Amino acid sequence: MQLHSFKNDYSEGCHPAILQALIDSNLIQEEGYGNDSFSLKAVEMLRDAVGKSEVGVYFMPIGTQTNLTVISSILKSYEYVIAAETGHIVGSEAGAIEATGHKVVTLPTQVDGKIRLTDLHQYFDAQSDHPLFMSPRLLYISNSTELGAIYTKAELKALSEYCHEKNMFLFVDGARLASALTAEGNDVTLKDMGQLVDIFYIGATKAGALIGEAVVISDKSLEAGFAMNMKQKGAVLAKGRLLGIQFVELFKDNLYFELAKHANKMAKKISDAIRKKGFHFLTESNTNQLFPILPNDCIQKLHEKYAFYTWKNINAKESAIRLITCWATKEESVDELISDIEKL
Amino acid sequence: MQLHSFKNDYSEGCHPAILQALIDSNLIQEEGYGNDSFSLKAVEMLRDAVGKSEVGVYFMPIGTQTNLTVISSILKSYEYVIAAETGHIVGSEAGAIEATGHKVVTLPTQVDGKIRLTDLHQYFDAQSDHPLFMSPRLLYISNSTELGAIYTKAELKALSEYCHEKNMFLFVDGARLASALTAEGNDVTLKDMGQLVDIFYIGATKAGALIGEAVVISDKSLEAGFAMNMKQKGAVLAKGRLLGIQFVELFKDNLYFELAKHANKMAKKISDAIRKKGFHFLTESNTNQLFPILPNDCIQKLHEKYAFYTWKNINAKESAIRLITCWATKEESVDELISDIEKL
Amino acid sequence: MQLHSFKNDYSEGCHPAILQALIDSNLIQEEGYGNDSFSLKAVEMLRDAVGKSEVGVYFMPIGTQTNLTVISSILKSYEYVIAAETGHIVGSEAGAIEATGHKVVTLPTQVDGKIRLTDLHQYFDAQSDHPLFMSPRLLYISNSTELGAIYTKAELKALSEYCHEKNMFLFVDGARLASALTAEGNDVTLKDMGQLVDIFYIGATKAGALIGEAVVISDKSLEAGFAMNMKQKGAVLAKGRLLGIQFVELFKDNLYFELAKHANKMAKKISDAIRKKGFHFLTESNTNQLFPILPNDCIQKLHEKYAFYTWKNINAKESAIRLITCWATKEESVDELISDIEKL
Amino acid sequence: MQLHSFKNDYSEGCHPAILQALIDSNLIQEEGYGNDSFSLKAVEMLRDAVGKSEVGVYFMPIGTQTNLTVISSILKSYEYVIAAETGHIVGSEAGAIEATGHKVVTLPTQVDGKIRLTDLHQYFDAQSDHPLFMSPRLLYISNSTELGAIYTKAELKALSEYCHEKNMFLFVDGARLASALTAEGNDVTLKDMGQLVDIFYIGATKAGALIGEAVVISDKSLEAGFAMNMKQKGAVLAKGRLLGIQFVELFKDNLYFELAKHANKMAKKISDAIRKKGFHFLTESNTNQLFPILPNDCIQKLHEKYAFYTWKNINAKESAIRLITCWATKEESVDELISDIEKL
Repeated sequence: MQLHSFKNDYSEGCHPAILQALIDSNLIQEEGYGNDSFSLKAVEMLRDAVGKSEVGVYFMPIGTQTNLTVISSILKSYEYVIAAETGHIVGSEAGAIEATGHKVVTLPTQVDGKIRLTDLHQYFDAQSDHPLFMSPRLLYISNSTELGAIYTKAELKALSEYCHEKNMFLFVDGARLASALTAEGNDVTLKDMGQLVDIFYIGATKAGALIGEAVVISDKSLEAGFAMNMKQKGAVLAKGRLLGIQFVELFKDNLYFELAKHANKMAKKISDAIRKKGFHFLTESNTNQLFPILPNDCIQKLHEKYAFYTWKNINAKESAIRLITCWATKEESVDELISDIEKL
Repeated sequence: MQLHSFKNDYSEGCHPAILQALIDSNLIQEEGYGNDSFSLKAVEMLRDAVGKSEVGVYFMPIGTQTNLTVISSILKSYEYVIAAETGHIVGSEAGAIEATGHKVVTLPTQVDGKIRLTDLHQYFDAQSDHPLFMSPRLLYISNSTELGAIYTKAELKALSEYCHEKNMFLFVDGARLASALTAEGNDVTLKDMGQLVDIFYIGATKAGALIGEAVVISDKSLEAGFAMNMKQKGAVLAKGRLLGIQFVELFKDNLYFELAKHANKMAKKISDAIRKKGFHFLTESNTNQLFPILPNDCIQKLHEKYAFYTWKNINAKESAIRLITCWATKEESVDELISDIEKL
Repeated sequence: MQLHSFKNDYSEGCHPAILQALIDSNLIQEEGYGNDSFSLKAVEMLRDAVGKSEVGVYFMPIGTQTNLTVISSILKSYEYVIAAETGHIVGSEAGAIEATGHKVVTLPTQVDGKIRLTDLHQYFDAQSDHPLFMSPRLLYISNSTELGAIYTKAELKALSEYCHEKNMFLFVDGARLASALTAEGNDVTLKDMGQLVDIFYIGATKAGALIGEAVVISDKSLEAGFAMNMKQKGAVLAKGRLLGIQFVELFKDNLYFELAKHANKMAKKISDAIRKKGFHFLTESNTNQLFPILPNDCIQKLHEKYAFYTWKNINAKESAIRLITCWATKEESVDELISDIEKL
Repeated sequence: MQLHSFKNDYSEGCHPAILQALIDSNLIQEEGYGNDSFSLKAVEMLRDAVGKSEVGVYFMPIGTQTNLTVISSILKSYEYVIAAETGHIVGSEAGAIEATGHKVVTLPTQVDGKIRLTDLHQYFDAQSDHPLFMSPRLLYISNSTELGAIYTKAELKALSEYCHEKNMFLFVDGARLASALTAEGNDVTLKDMGQLVDIFYIGATKAGALIGEAVVISDKSLEAGFAMNMKQKGAVLAKGRLLGIQFVELFKDNLYFELAKHANKMAKKISDAIRKKGFHFLTESNTNQLFPILPNDCIQKLHEKYAFYTWKNINAKESAIRLITCWATKEESVDELISDIEKL
């Protein structure tokens, strides 16, 4: 690739501190399968970060694998999960959840991809009298969503309470949790997550690591058998140290959040420029994903220098594109993009 | 761990050349999901190594995940796989294959864990008249086996021919293929594998990489949908470069095989010393796994300084232990162990 | 139940001729698992009816089981099925298809529940550029649909051709095929089904039998392993004679279609009366399912004497109800209902 | 078939009382899906028979389907079942349990196919230190076994206690429970089953019905979601009356047990004759399945007049055959067989 890419948040390797830690530890013999000293230390660091000493913490390499492992751990064969139509497990995982035997029922949502309490009310109201209604057992949401939106603490609390009332668990896909928790307007902390969410993960692949998602299990009843299910789904690294080392580095000195702040800041600069230029957005976002609507000829022009996805045709003349920043996005690239936007 | 460990071949990180390559490439923006330049190069290098320009090559992070992805790609819902009772998919993967819906039928084998043509004959002879006989569709073997044994070219050829006669595919788990192909007495090459085996993988996690198994699909009919199944099983790294870079390093200048030779050489030194001391082995092995039978008090003594698994009780006084060497095993540690064995 | 029920088409037992045949054959010893003389005869009778001597014919007891067995026989693990949002496999089978590992992608359709060529075009057009697009492998439709609508021969032909162009198979759920093929306006025959549809079933449970659905496999490539998959899904009756005897009776002297004609005729009498009374329908139907929209107080009044489902609230004052007739519906009950409708 | 068949216990239709009940009830409109008055009555009759008013009772058509529905209802994705090597779910169901995602671990047993406490001890002792040991969650046994053996009350009690100690449930496949509970030497009652066994079924297909197995859930914790799982597995008959009517007839006036006594008595006459003639048995049986060992030429001679399976080659000259009687076996056929045995 010759152009600067704003296609995704996994175009680069990892933060240099991680590489240094890999070098420093390389020839130390460690136990396998997550029992290495780094993973054990990272578990404690994440428990501290979540503010609950008893939560279960498990490291997995890949997001889709994490989603399918978590969901199949929780559900019995006849139980199912509710997700937004735009949810990652719905359209981007090639049927991974269904392959473990579970139906994913989709709710239409507002364009931002957030599931609101009213969406759940509508679903349950429509179903309640139907003789063949299977009760859902799990609500899957993402923070931030696939469209860059974040949940407020009040929204999370409302979902959490409603789920528990309906005998459902609340699961938050946190592939982009770093970006959400450091976004302008966010009032949710990791500690809030530990209080309100039954099971969630802290994504690192898109936040400075080479690979790695850390599952946090707040509801102890969900921990039985979890490790065995990870093994069964092929989610346990022999060299678990690779995950432990990365999370130690990311949660030492707050690096995880600092990197996300940078990504969000870079996105903010871009969105300000786009807004100033008079363009609108498919949906508002304070995180590292932007969905501006541009005339098709402007899109074509930008494509000459930058890589990004066209997300959706809006009408014959305009489309929404997706621009993504990350921990490694250089400010000079952003400035260059802004300058090119201004010239559109 | 304070002791030197001979417990497994994944106690250390990775070969330093890999870390250097990660550093060198770290901030280059690359495509995701295996379309990075390193992965594309590694595919070509492996095709060269296998000697067939048209084989499919796919990189996955973890062995269990590789096994379940390969097997579920090949089989239709009512088809099943045959494996040795000691096969990795039978006892060490927590039901991973069954979780994809497929029965694993186990054959008893000799103690070395190899499936021989006679084992297959016996199985088919016993079944042939039964009205409920489901035809197996896949034979799973490991080279080397879980007990360190290797297949000869003649044995592989015989299995391959028999499988095709019986409308079965032959799949070789190559988690320890490096050790097998460099073992004393081995007459199989990667090129032979490409000719005789329908689908196999070249394991790197146990051969110098941090993570990584490279699936080689010799039978083109097995490639349709494989990438989609990988995605579904959560086996596609966003930062596929992590796998590509490692395989490029390992297959540049023959490093992959050089590292395995070292591991085998270290094992040979140990086995010679054990033999010289008059001890026997549960099964012969020229690879990096040894299964000597020692008096229990000797085992206890060795445990004071070395970490290893007790594999099996032989009688009231003796047990078989498992000693494993790897690319990172230091000759001085081996010499120390030998010296302690001599003093037993 | 004291009232006459128009709730469904499975409230009664079976046509008396079937009971007589069960009595006549009761103590004859027959082979098990579908190899009895009645099943073998019924296979031949259905091949004749379909007009292709080589089609595969398999008898199963239950519709949901038939759907899951057929679909899991055809698809590989990473393949999926397309269905209408109102399809039986979507909302009425408790996740049966997903439990076999396959995603069901739903298309919105017109209110009649039919999938039209334009629906498929829209779906494929929207997906074609997406990097994570999994190709569907199977189109599932029902004739008649869950809303009583039937496909014309031209529509079936268009779907069939488009499916084959897109490398998909066409599967028709024929739980209510008898009603469809005998409906006013129908121009499709069983022979057309055999020509245009790759796999379908001829439903008998809702057409005069106690239990039974006969799968017809027109595309021979779909027959390999089908019997084994039936066995695996628990769909093979030990006393397969129970299915064979019923299909022999139903396809002797055209009874299957005569019974459906009666059901349709009874429905027609009711719909004429409703129309005459000035009420409208949620969707038009010439089959045995009617969906009239009535004022809620009229519905309440009818409920005093008749059992039926309220299908959907239309507005604060009106709802659509579902009235179903069947082979056993007595004309006097229909006349009484009509008289009560006239009095509304 | 021109010969008399001793091949299985499902060669005939059903007891005439059932056919009469089908006729008598045929045109009564009933609720679907097991809510008909007959099924509701049969539930109460079976609760009485088991002696516990609160047990769950569910009717399913087919044994394999019953096994897969029960097992998949109980287990979470990573849990597995233990069965005898000769268990029906191991060799006769085409991988039905694995298709629901669960491993079946087999125990070698004595030739009679019974799992004894010592078999479980051996299994757990061998596994307890293994780091990858998955705890089993369910013990599957059959009464009578596939080889006609029955469990004593003491044996069932011991298994039950051990299972509960090990956090396992005990599941009894009762496809041939009628024959077991009426066998000479049996001391187990249906009431004992309700006390000792967590979940079991009362098989009717092999005991006088056309189809039908009645699952009894003694452990209330296993009942949640069971009905939904039945629906998902395609195990719910639209015309559930077909099952309800049959169980009402079979449990009215003790018919179920009377029919089994007849089958056992016929088997006893045959086994006495075989024993008297000096032949031995592969395993002793007081139920309706016999496994005599006969010279191959005698087997050939009997095959001229009778249908039965050759079960196993014993040596070059002798084989074990399987002879099965049932509720419909005529005493004159048995007498003829005996007379032919005497002439061997």
